[in-house]
Amino acid sequence: MSIVPIDGGVCASLGFESSAASAGIKNPENKRLDCALVFSKDKATIAGTFTTNRVKAAPVLWCQRLCSQGEAHAVFINSGNANACTGERGLNDVEQTAEEIATLLKIDKTHVLVMSTGVIGVPLPMDRIKKGVHECVKSLSSENHLNSAKAIMTTDTVPKEYAVAVQLSRGIVRVGGMAKGAGMICPNMATMLSVITTDAGIAKEKLRELLLRAVQKSFNCIAVDNDMSTNDSVILLANGASGIAIQSGTQDEELFYQGLLQVCVWLARNIVADGEGATKFVEIKITGADTVDNARKIAKSIAVSQLCKTAFFGGDPNWGRILCAIGYSGVPVEPEKVKLWIGNILVFEKGLPANYDEKEVAEIMKNKEFVIHADIGMGSEEICYWTSDLSYDYVKINADYRT
Amino acid sequence: MSIVPIDGGVCASLGFESSAASAGIKNPENKRLDCALVFSKDKATIAGTFTTNRVKAAPVLWCQRLCSQGEAHAVFINSGNANACTGERGLNDVEQTAEEIATLLKIDKTHVLVMSTGVIGVPLPMDRIKKGVHECVKSLSSENHLNSAKAIMTTDTVPKEYAVAVQLSRGIVRVGGMAKGAGMICPNMATMLSVITTDAGIAKEKLRELLLRAVQKSFNCIAVDNDMSTNDSVILLANGASGIAIQSGTQDEELFYQGLLQVCVWLARNIVADGEGATKFVEIKITGADTVDNARKIAKSIAVSQLCKTAFFGGDPNWGRILCAIGYSGVPVEPEKVKLWIGNILVFEKGLPANYDEKEVAEIMKNKEFVIHADIGMGSEEICYWTSDLSYDYVKINADYRT
Repeated sequence: MSIVPIDGGVCASLGFESSAASAGIKNPENKRLDCALVFSKDKATIAGTFTTNRVKAAPVLWCQRLCSQGEAHAVFINSGNANACTGERGLNDVEQTAEEIATLLKIDKTHVLVMSTGVIGVPLPMDRIKKGVHECVKSLSSENHLNSAKAIMTTDTVPKEYAVAVQLSRGIVRVGGMAKGAGMICPNMATMLSVITTDAGIAKEKLRELLLRAVQKSFNCIAVDNDMSTNDSVILLANGASGIAIQSGTQDEELFYQGLLQVCVWLARNIVADGEGATKFVEIKITGADTVDNARKIAKSIAVSQLCKTAFFGGDPNWGRILCAIGYSGVPVEPEKVKLWIGNILVFEKGLPANYDEKEVAEIMKNKEFVIHADIGMGSEEICYWTSDLSYDYVKINADYRT
Repeated sequence: MSIVPIDGGVCASLGFESSAASAGIKNPENKRLDCALVFSKDKATIAGTFTTNRVKAAPVLWCQRLCSQGEAHAVFINSGNANACTGERGLNDVEQTAEEIATLLKIDKTHVLVMSTGVIGVPLPMDRIKKGVHECVKSLSSENHLNSAKAIMTTDTVPKEYAVAVQLSRGIVRVGGMAKGAGMICPNMATMLSVITTDAGIAKEKLRELLLRAVQKSFNCIAVDNDMSTNDSVILLANGASGIAIQSGTQDEELFYQGLLQVCVWLARNIVADGEGATKFVEIKITGADTVDNARKIAKSIAVSQLCKTAFFGGDPNWGRILCAIGYSGVPVEPEKVKLWIGNILVFEKGLPANYDEKEVAEIMKNKEFVIHADIGMGSEEICYWTSDLSYDYVKINADYRT
């Protein structure tokens, strides 16, 4: 196999260092890690995908500007405050943050990406942000990746980082990433915060193309709730430190893409598995669609349905709700052509319940992880989508997030 | 005032009788009322609006056929079984039910509407349905309206019926209705089950036009969850028993419409207030939209957002989630132009938090009923939308609906 998992998260790629600090962003008394910095001494080409929400946080607007320019050295991330709905002041705060880091690292401020996650509508506490910045710059190291992944968590219960080494024709390149998720997870263009590094050398247009392809099959295939955040961002930095440049149209490019995809899919799946209040991980496989977009629409319709998600939570094999969600997905499905499986058991075909043992299906739904498969009978396109269940704990976590 | 509330539900309109029976549809041992019949000796013109779900229950297909024909005498409704995803057999069962009623009432089977609500994917127990039909036909009376409203309940906690008398230029006409809701409530064309009667005489094309207009401002403005049912139907019967015919284009037509709208809005609001697990009733008022459709899109985006609904449940004045839902509604809003109020308190304008006292806002959200008002600053169209909160009980009710 030419792609193997390795340790190191965002620092698995050569030439990347990271760090974390506790700055008390949300609450000065809170000592949890809430700032992270990822840095490459070599300038990296960058690509990003961002929320399509019309209400975009200030750091998203900053990153979009920098990504169109295409190069950067560093990414600074804070949790505890989203710096969204903060107007002109929010934009100034982002720029000041970038400037502070740039001065300390002796780079240009337009080479410092900034990401934020947390509460909306509260100005950043800039004194504490600066404290976090200073601590982060001081403690940069290739050993700090796990602390960085911890620092960007909000309601996440586990840090999420993953990396692979990819064997190319002329040597090995690495792809490593971290992500945070938990709530407000329903992507459209990109979702939540994720930073991915690679030591391959790639031109910025190609980097963007490969990231978009990978995001479409990973971060854009997950749902915890149906709420697309104001801050969703995935950023990929390629610093070329491996000495291996990816040439367009080669088999190496495809291999690199597979490695990138593997990192994106791992992070996306683990965001769902760690979704707010999640007790189940459900893979929704749609086959036989006429287009990938329609497959995605149908999958998402099931993935965000409150009634399907509560049935998953209860382990209730109430497949009528799944069929109902397929029916209102907006895709002109013909119910008589739809086949539906829970696990490996066919429960519906030809417009009728199939002949199955309900107890067996209930048994499958007791597992922490299971697959719902619908064949739409309209064509040959397919998609995999991942969702969690809707539990008491989801309600509990979100009924009073801020206290 | 020319429109006054009156007693009598579906039987408030002259010439309508109704009844209810306990047939053990879902469970032979269960003695709750689960069949209802509404009957007019005079043939009525009819109009209906139905789910736009591609997966339509057999009774929906039957009613659509009858509504295009435009006349009927009776509506039979069962709860406990939706007769959805039941194929050819389901269609035969509807026709048999209509035939049974037609024989007993000496009318044509194509004048008997049939509605069903309950579990999906289980064939109707026709022996018990027939028992219910016989009991219903025997006990028809203008006194039975409340029992009919009770018989169509599923997870509803209270029966919902309402009626008004409308003073027209040449006398009084009545409009009365009943509805059931509770879960799988997110309309598009129409929603859940509702039967509305009137003793005004109205041509079927006009009846349809007025019903569509009223449904757009009532049943199509509510959400409990985001799941559009396979069985949603609103049916309006006009038997002319008042002796007063509504002429097209007159002031009487507008007055009648206002009476009809009042009944539809009352029923729709009460479906939300009795939503599964609902502890709050939230009115979402969108003003300043460029089109009514966009106002509806924005309102719905807030109304179905799990994060907004859990914040309503927790009484958490986390208005960032509301703004976020406005941002991903699909309408190209400009955040700087949006003003947002919770109750009468302005919390956001000009892209920034307004100067308000958070405790006052939290106080408002402690009420069982409050208003969220967003002015979009794009035009002059507006809409009122109603939603409930997302509570532990919603999850509890739906995690194991069938046991």
